[in-house]
Amino acid sequence: MSLLTVGSVAFDAIETPFGKTDKIIGGAGTYIALSSSFFMKEQRIVAVVGEDFPKEMLNQLEAKGVDLEGLQIKQGEKTFFWSGKYHNDMNTRDTLVTELNVLEHFDPIIPASYQGTEYLMLGNLSPQVQRSVIERLETRPKLIAMDTMNFWMDIALDELKKTMSMVDVLIINDEEARQLSKEYSLVKAAKVIRNMGPKHLIIKKGEHGALLFHGDHIFFAPALPLEDVFDPTGAGDTFAGGFMGYLASTDDTSFENMKRAIIAGSALASFCVEKFGTERLTEITKLELELRIDRFVNLAAFEMTQTVG
Amino acid sequence: MSLLTVGSVAFDAIETPFGKTDKIIGGAGTYIALSSSFFMKEQRIVAVVGEDFPKEMLNQLEAKGVDLEGLQIKQGEKTFFWSGKYHNDMNTRDTLVTELNVLEHFDPIIPASYQGTEYLMLGNLSPQVQRSVIERLETRPKLIAMDTMNFWMDIALDELKKTMSMVDVLIINDEEARQLSKEYSLVKAAKVIRNMGPKHLIIKKGEHGALLFHGDHIFFAPALPLEDVFDPTGAGDTFAGGFMGYLASTDDTSFENMKRAIIAGSALASFCVEKFGTERLTEITKLELELRIDRFVNLAAFEMTQTVG
Repeated sequence: MSLLTVGSVAFDAIETPFGKTDKIIGGAGTYIALSSSFFMKEQRIVAVVGEDFPKEMLNQLEAKGVDLEGLQIKQGEKTFFWSGKYHNDMNTRDTLVTELNVLEHFDPIIPASYQGTEYLMLGNLSPQVQRSVIERLETRPKLIAMDTMNFWMDIALDELKKTMSMVDVLIINDEEARQLSKEYSLVKAAKVIRNMGPKHLIIKKGEHGALLFHGDHIFFAPALPLEDVFDPTGAGDTFAGGFMGYLASTDDTSFENMKRAIIAGSALASFCVEKFGTERLTEITKLELELRIDRFVNLAAFEMTQTVG
Repeated sequence: MSLLTVGSVAFDAIETPFGKTDKIIGGAGTYIALSSSFFMKEQRIVAVVGEDFPKEMLNQLEAKGVDLEGLQIKQGEKTFFWSGKYHNDMNTRDTLVTELNVLEHFDPIIPASYQGTEYLMLGNLSPQVQRSVIERLETRPKLIAMDTMNFWMDIALDELKKTMSMVDVLIINDEEARQLSKEYSLVKAAKVIRNMGPKHLIIKKGEHGALLFHGDHIFFAPALPLEDVFDPTGAGDTFAGGFMGYLASTDDTSFENMKRAIIAGSALASFCVEKFGTERLTEITKLELELRIDRFVNLAAFEMTQTVG
C-alpha cells in the first residue's frame, strides 16, 4: 500500500535539562517519515524547505525509501525553524523562537505520481493546508489520519473543525482533547470530538500511554516506563509515523490492527526520546525494534483465570 | 487461606463537585474488608471504633464474613472522623477536619485465634502501629502488604522505613513514590524504594492505571476510562482490598497472579468511585464484577502478529 505524509521538514534547536543542541534536523514530516520507514520500503512526502536545508538529510530520507518528488525546495528562502526549552519535568516547554520562513506561504503541490495514495498522514500544519491536500487528491484515500495542536484550536477553530470532519483518525494529546471538547473526562471528550467527524480518536497521554476510541470500543495502550526522557521532541510525530506505517504496510484498518499499530508507534516513540532530535531514530535496527515491541507485549499482558471466588 | 486487615474503621464527611454527605461510614479498614470480601468468605480485622459507631455497620461487615474479634469498641470514646472537600479535577482535595479520637492511642490487639494468619494487609496507619502488628504475630505471614501516605513521610520517615523493611509489597501512589524516593522517574523511584525493603512495589496512578515492579519485571495495569468520578474516597483502599483478597483466595504470590490481583483491585476501585463512600461497594453483584473484569481484559488486550515489515 502507498503512504503519503504531509508535514514540516525543518530545523530545531532544543534545550533540555540534559543539554542543548545547535540547529538540528526536525519537523513533523521528518519524524513521521523516518518512523514509518520501519514498515514502509517506499513512501511519499509533501513538504517544503529552503535552500539552506542540507542535501545529506534529503539523501538520507531517500535512502530510507522516501520519494521526494513532493518536496519543494524554495531558492532564496529559509527553512522553518523552531527553538524550545523543556522544563525540568520534561512535560512542559517554552517556545523560544518560531521562524515560519517557507511555511508562511506553503502551497502543497501533489505530484501526479502521488495520485491514488491509499493512506494519508496529515502532520501538524495549518488546517487549511491539511485540507487542501485532501482536496487535491483525486480519489479519497482509504484512510486519512490527522495530527493538530492547541495553537490551531486557539486561532483557527472553525477551519480545524472543517478539516477534522474530513478525516478518519484524529491523533491528539490529552490536553488538546480537553481543550477541543471542553470536557475534562477523556471519555466525554472522546464522544464530543468523534461527533466532529473522526470515527477513530487516539488520545496520547505521554508517559501514561494512549487511548484509542472507536464505536463502543476503547483500547488502553501502555507507555514504556523509562528511566530518563532525554528529549521529547518529535515523540508524538514518531508515534503517528509508526502508527500509519504499520497500518499501511499491513493494509488492515480494523480495530484489532489499529491496536497493533499503536503499539508499533509507541515502541518507536520510546526510542525517539532517548537522544536529541532524530538521532536515535536513524540508528534503530529491526532487531532492536522487535525486542522493544516485545517489551510492550510483556508490559501489558495478563490472563485472568479465576475471577470472582 | 486467611487474610488479616489492619486499618481504620471510621466516619467520613465528603464534599465533591457533585454533592456532599453527612457523616458516613469510611476508613481504610472498612474499604479493604468490603473489597476483599468479594474473594474471601472469611477474613479478620484489627481496628478500633468508639461507642458511637453504628452496630448495623458492624453487622454488615460480619454478614460479609469479617470476623470482628479483633475490633475494639472503646466505651466513652469517639470514632475517628475525617472530612474533606475535593477540587473540580477530583485529583486533589483539602482536608477540612481530622479528629483522631480512638486512633490517637490505638494499641492493636491480636486475638489468639488470628495467630497463623497467612496474608496480612496493613492499611494506612502510623508506621509504628503497622509494625506492632507484624511483631505481635507469632509466625510471619506468607505475604505482608502495606499502604502508607505522604503524611507519614513528612513526620515519621525513619519509623516508616523501619516498617517498610519488614514487608513484601508496598502500595503507594505516584506522588508518594516520588516523595519517598526523591526521584521523578517512576522507574528510578521504584529502584530506590525497593532497596528500602519491599520486593514488590505497586505505584497507583489513578486514572492512568497502576505499575507493578518486581525484579526486572514491570506490569502496566490500565485504569478504566470513566465518564465521571463521583467520589474518589476509598478507591485506593478498595484497590488494595481487592488485590489482597484475590491473592489470598488464590494463595499464589507469583508475578503472573499479582497481575490478576491488580486487575481485580482496579475493577473494584472503578466501582467504588461511582457513588459516595462505600455505597457502591455494598451493592455490586458477582456478575457485575465479572463483567467489569472482562472490560479490563478487553481494554488492554492486543496481539502482535506481523511486527517489523
